[in-house]
Amino acid sequence: MGALRLPSLTSIFTGSSLARSSLFPRCSSQLVFAKATEVAESKQKLPPVVQEQGGITPRSQDFNAWYLDVISMAELADYGPVRGTMVIRPYGYAIWEAIQDYLNIKFKETGHSNMYFPQFIPFSFIEKEASHVEGFSPELALVTVGGGKELEEKLVVRPTSETIVNHMFTQWIQSYRDLPLMINQWANVTRWEMRTKPFIRTLEFLWQEGHTAHATPEEAEKEAMQMIDVYTKFAYEQAAIPVIPGRKSRVETFAGADRTYTIEAMMGDRKALQAGTSHNLGQNFSRAFGTQFADENGQRQHVWQTSWAISTRFVGGIIMTHGDDAGLMLPPRLASVQVVIVPIWKKASEKNEVLDAALSVKDVLHSAGIKVKLDDSDQRTPGWKFNFWEMKGVPLRIEIGPRDVSSGSVVISRRDIPGKPGKVFGISMESSVLVPYIKEKLDEIQSSLLDKAIVFRDSNIVDVSSYDELKEAISQGKWARGPWVGSDEDELKVKEETGATIRCFPFDQPQGPKKCLMTGSPADEVAIFAKSY
Amino acid sequence: MGALRLPSLTSIFTGSSLARSSLFPRCSSQLVFAKATEVAESKQKLPPVVQEQGGITPRSQDFNAWYLDVISMAELADYGPVRGTMVIRPYGYAIWEAIQDYLNIKFKETGHSNMYFPQFIPFSFIEKEASHVEGFSPELALVTVGGGKELEEKLVVRPTSETIVNHMFTQWIQSYRDLPLMINQWANVTRWEMRTKPFIRTLEFLWQEGHTAHATPEEAEKEAMQMIDVYTKFAYEQAAIPVIPGRKSRVETFAGADRTYTIEAMMGDRKALQAGTSHNLGQNFSRAFGTQFADENGQRQHVWQTSWAISTRFVGGIIMTHGDDAGLMLPPRLASVQVVIVPIWKKASEKNEVLDAALSVKDVLHSAGIKVKLDDSDQRTPGWKFNFWEMKGVPLRIEIGPRDVSSGSVVISRRDIPGKPGKVFGISMESSVLVPYIKEKLDEIQSSLLDKAIVFRDSNIVDVSSYDELKEAISQGKWARGPWVGSDEDELKVKEETGATIRCFPFDQPQGPKKCLMTGSPADEVAIFAKSY
Repeated sequence: MGALRLPSLTSIFTGSSLARSSLFPRCSSQLVFAKATEVAESKQKLPPVVQEQGGITPRSQDFNAWYLDVISMAELADYGPVRGTMVIRPYGYAIWEAIQDYLNIKFKETGHSNMYFPQFIPFSFIEKEASHVEGFSPELALVTVGGGKELEEKLVVRPTSETIVNHMFTQWIQSYRDLPLMINQWANVTRWEMRTKPFIRTLEFLWQEGHTAHATPEEAEKEAMQMIDVYTKFAYEQAAIPVIPGRKSRVETFAGADRTYTIEAMMGDRKALQAGTSHNLGQNFSRAFGTQFADENGQRQHVWQTSWAISTRFVGGIIMTHGDDAGLMLPPRLASVQVVIVPIWKKASEKNEVLDAALSVKDVLHSAGIKVKLDDSDQRTPGWKFNFWEMKGVPLRIEIGPRDVSSGSVVISRRDIPGKPGKVFGISMESSVLVPYIKEKLDEIQSSLLDKAIVFRDSNIVDVSSYDELKEAISQGKWARGPWVGSDEDELKVKEETGATIRCFPFDQPQGPKKCLMTGSPADEVAIFAKSY
Repeated sequence: MGALRLPSLTSIFTGSSLARSSLFPRCSSQLVFAKATEVAESKQKLPPVVQEQGGITPRSQDFNAWYLDVISMAELADYGPVRGTMVIRPYGYAIWEAIQDYLNIKFKETGHSNMYFPQFIPFSFIEKEASHVEGFSPELALVTVGGGKELEEKLVVRPTSETIVNHMFTQWIQSYRDLPLMINQWANVTRWEMRTKPFIRTLEFLWQEGHTAHATPEEAEKEAMQMIDVYTKFAYEQAAIPVIPGRKSRVETFAGADRTYTIEAMMGDRKALQAGTSHNLGQNFSRAFGTQFADENGQRQHVWQTSWAISTRFVGGIIMTHGDDAGLMLPPRLASVQVVIVPIWKKASEKNEVLDAALSVKDVLHSAGIKVKLDDSDQRTPGWKFNFWEMKGVPLRIEIGPRDVSSGSVVISRRDIPGKPGKVFGISMESSVLVPYIKEKLDEIQSSLLDKAIVFRDSNIVDVSSYDELKEAISQGKWARGPWVGSDEDELKVKEETGATIRCFPFDQPQGPKKCLMTGSPADEVAIFAKSY
């Protein structure tokens, strides 16, 4: 497929052929789609604006424009024809597949089985749990016609599955011997969001949702904590994103949960991204649906439940954590191409020996389990290929020219260290040298991305002890961390006045006595406030 | 989770507590749901009818009842709350995962990338390709309300994705260099079927749909054939189902395709199951959507396309091909549990040494990559466990009792050979003996299931040379194979008069001159007629 064309990301925003820069209001945080109609006219052909503009918008100039440029130029996603929907293209989908591969194993290791629930939920189900319906009813897509006939009861296209899961659990759970019941599904979900942004917030997205039922509240709590821990490890070790795990405030708790645990990630523009959540649902759904079991004494009891999810939003988090002005930067463990080989020749006489060497290096790395791609196309210059694969975020590049062939060595460049400092010459092509060298470099890059993100995160969190200090930190675009026992109203006041919300009460808490930054009352915990996606 | 309860498969059919046998009309081929309302009252609790009736309905007595009993008792699926929907339970979903694991690799090996298209399709898209809209419009589910508002254009919940794929392809394909474009997605699809049956035909099902675009009709044809070949190999080698690959008649061709290739499987009741299809779409969709490319001479041309799919229906095919009166029988390559270990003890003093031995055998097999389960529960007798795991279709059972521990050996029973003949005593627990023995037995069972299915298939296909012979064969429940150049009207007449349709013109054709069984005209090909699901 052709590269560096920008056929459709821009075209949705306009009915004319004016370039996006002059017409399209790219808000700092979210896309506001210009058309009110649900079906946007995305077939309009536009000149490749970004390309003509000379590449990706610099991050510092306009973070949102940079994000959209990266998604378009790295061919991660495109807009679907229906407002707010997204087509996940192969290079973007491969990131999601890498996320799935890792988590799927972890879920099974922790005792969960995959299964599949129907996506159509009777409307009456949604109404059964009071706070759930309040939270979700504004976002529902409804099927009202099926097979040419108006339906007697309209159907909700699942926004999440707690209700239908409980409906089925009542049929599978009779006694304590049926517990714990621990399942997961990989599925699409639909939420009728008004303000959307690719990967971060779309009408339809992909996710996994875990659902469990337990005999005791302690077991449910342990499970909810276990899963936020799985997510935290995944974020650190695979995505190189130093998320902060913690508990949501009451205001931010999932509609229907007793407690919501979250992992919060700091994006490159220092806004927070809720990157995964795990809910202790208590008995809210089991009471609403009558999900009961007979305990060891034969007494009927309602089960204690959890649910937990990570979605394609996480792909957006990876882009916005590691990317730079050159484009995407992928952590090696989630990259579908970890190493790209660019052969270099000038004369036709050199071509064969260079390509032979490149192919043999490719085979050596491939056999060693390294995800390698050889870009041997005639269409593009080596320089163009360098830029292209940097933009695509490939962690390592191997260059092979005629002199390298003679010396039996290659040149290796790191994506995360631009220019000369990231370049090493004369690494032997010998499998026994090259393979361990590449593996070590990939590990180094993986660590280095995490370290850099930790430094960035920590230099942008300010400890505050008063509301004025909080306001100052937020106005500088930073995160504020301070003691908090404020009321729900206090929290909403902060949101109204600063735009920041409580992202979480982090699990990692400072010792010693504290006073609430808002009320001055003794506080047990610090909370983290930030603007967020 | 508890076993051998039947909480919900029956409960959907009744508002009273009468047993299913007296109330529920189990048709021979398909479920007709009793309730007209789309949301069935499936929460009614019923006594475990099947269990009280003494197990699974014999296949010979009522094949459809047998099928539903197996699905329920082996915990493969349950009905969802919305009419015609299905919950795929972990043991059933594991079969689908095994199908996915195999095909996903094959699709990538043949050059396809996974991606994801939105499931909401503007209604106007469906109308663009004339035969497509004719084929699909009676089956559409429509979203008419989103976020609390009536939508300006109603949205179709995808029944298949050719239209939205072409809409996007127009944006990604400019020149011949962008071709071939070869993608696949794993997704859910919705078709508003009136007569449904678990796995075989449900309102929502899971599938993969491949979509490709090519520069020439030859390439598209080659691709369509390649993918039906991938499906054929999968059916034979993994599922042990001896499908017959061939071409669909014009009447049975996919709505929007030039040619449809199919794999047709014979179920245990000798009805045919269309188990996978691959379509040569010609330029039908590219003309409707304007999917064009500039060829090497700069001329604009419409692309040539294919699409191909296998769905969760295949799971139903596995059940109905191999199952017997004892329940499910899984081909080893698709079984999530290939070997179950049942420890046997009478005295408490024996328990520890038996369990220790069973655990060590489990570890040995697990380390060798064999999918093994140890059923060490105290709740059930060994005899109960034997029946249970036979019903679940596990290919091999290992029994370990005190005498086996003394002799350092185990007893091994094959699921596919009932009773004594399938039982071998005194196989050493030694890893060096046991592992190769188990692997060999699993291979033997895999081959044996296929061989048995081939014999069954071939003994139930009758070569016919006249319409009378065809009618005779069909009335005996068999498949009829005979020369055919009849018209569409002739084909519809056969359907009306016999209930049989042309399943395919098989690729494997007899040599020599032939005369059409209906018209007597010279015929180039034989067709296979059968009743089908």
